[in-house]
Amino acid sequence: MTTLNERIKKDGIVVNESILKIDSFLNHQIDPIIISQIAEKFYNHYKEAGVTKILTIEASGIAPALMTAQQFGVPMLFAKKATPSTLLEEQYKTEIHSYTKGTTHSVIVSKKYLSQNDVVLIVDDFLASGRAAMGLIDLVEQAEGKVAGVGICVEKSFQEGREKLEKMNVDVYSVSRIASLKSNKITFVEEARHE
Amino acid sequence: MTTLNERIKKDGIVVNESILKIDSFLNHQIDPIIISQIAEKFYNHYKEAGVTKILTIEASGIAPALMTAQQFGVPMLFAKKATPSTLLEEQYKTEIHSYTKGTTHSVIVSKKYLSQNDVVLIVDDFLASGRAAMGLIDLVEQAEGKVAGVGICVEKSFQEGREKLEKMNVDVYSVSRIASLKSNKITFVEEARHE
Repeated sequence: MTTLNERIKKDGIVVNESILKIDSFLNHQIDPIIISQIAEKFYNHYKEAGVTKILTIEASGIAPALMTAQQFGVPMLFAKKATPSTLLEEQYKTEIHSYTKGTTHSVIVSKKYLSQNDVVLIVDDFLASGRAAMGLIDLVEQAEGKVAGVGICVEKSFQEGREKLEKMNVDVYSVSRIASLKSNKITFVEEARHE
Repeated sequence: MTTLNERIKKDGIVVNESILKIDSFLNHQIDPIIISQIAEKFYNHYKEAGVTKILTIEASGIAPALMTAQQFGVPMLFAKKATPSTLLEEQYKTEIHSYTKGTTHSVIVSKKYLSQNDVVLIVDDFLASGRAAMGLIDLVEQAEGKVAGVGICVEKSFQEGREKLEKMNVDVYSVSRIASLKSNKITFVEEARHE
């Protein structure tokens, strides 16, 4: 069991069978020590992949993506949900549907910061339906860059995200994999295998 | 001249007399080395203040706030612009008007993560009108916590933010202070003093 799993067991709140709230240390209040440990795991998994850039989406992906960028010694880039008035140049744009919120957003990155020479590691806090990750992959592909893989803090393995990404031949590395949130109980993939 | 000033001179784009775009290293693409240097300066300035928490607002404050939290060994908390469906508990709420975008947002933090025992360092990427910082101060005051100060990456010293905060007896520490963006030229406060 990893430290992240232990922390999820201790502080995670099961809202319902599909929603886990871990906003005491991952995506509202943030514990820099846990994030740094996660970044180190991403680095160990992808260090031979020739990564040139870390890509995430605002807002809760920024913390793990930044510390991962620090480990790799490369820049981090975050896709923005709307067009700020100060971003005037050309953009790559994709649509991402939020399963939890039931909304669809356009997200953009400036064309200046993604190119065909980039090998991009995508980082996010959660993997559920896979729609955020697929939107970010779309942005990299528009730039004709290469996707090194997708690094995820917490994967809801009972949703279809990993399967969809693996069908696209994308390497998915998740620090924590949750098999089930049923009966108000957090079961990790490793535990479910032994039941 | 600090490294941040040098970087702003090199990569900053003057959009008009009040807007400076530094999204190649600070708030779209992010250079973890620059952010880490900024965090170290915040730490050196506020290390005796008994800081228990770093508070910022999504999205572009998250990167400097996280690395500052790492330096202090305390949690980081970011105020959210809307109420996510997974945040069910009681919240402190304030209104922040964006000068650049001409919009007003409600921002919230969970009551669980701010208390009267907290000594809070507020961190943000830009200080202009001071409205974001004042909104964050309002959240700390609702929780009856103490504000250690406001740490800013880039201050537009030709706008009223610093003056307003200092009138409230808030300590403001900015790594870079821009005196003017007139005539498509970036002039820093130190330089302006010698002219």
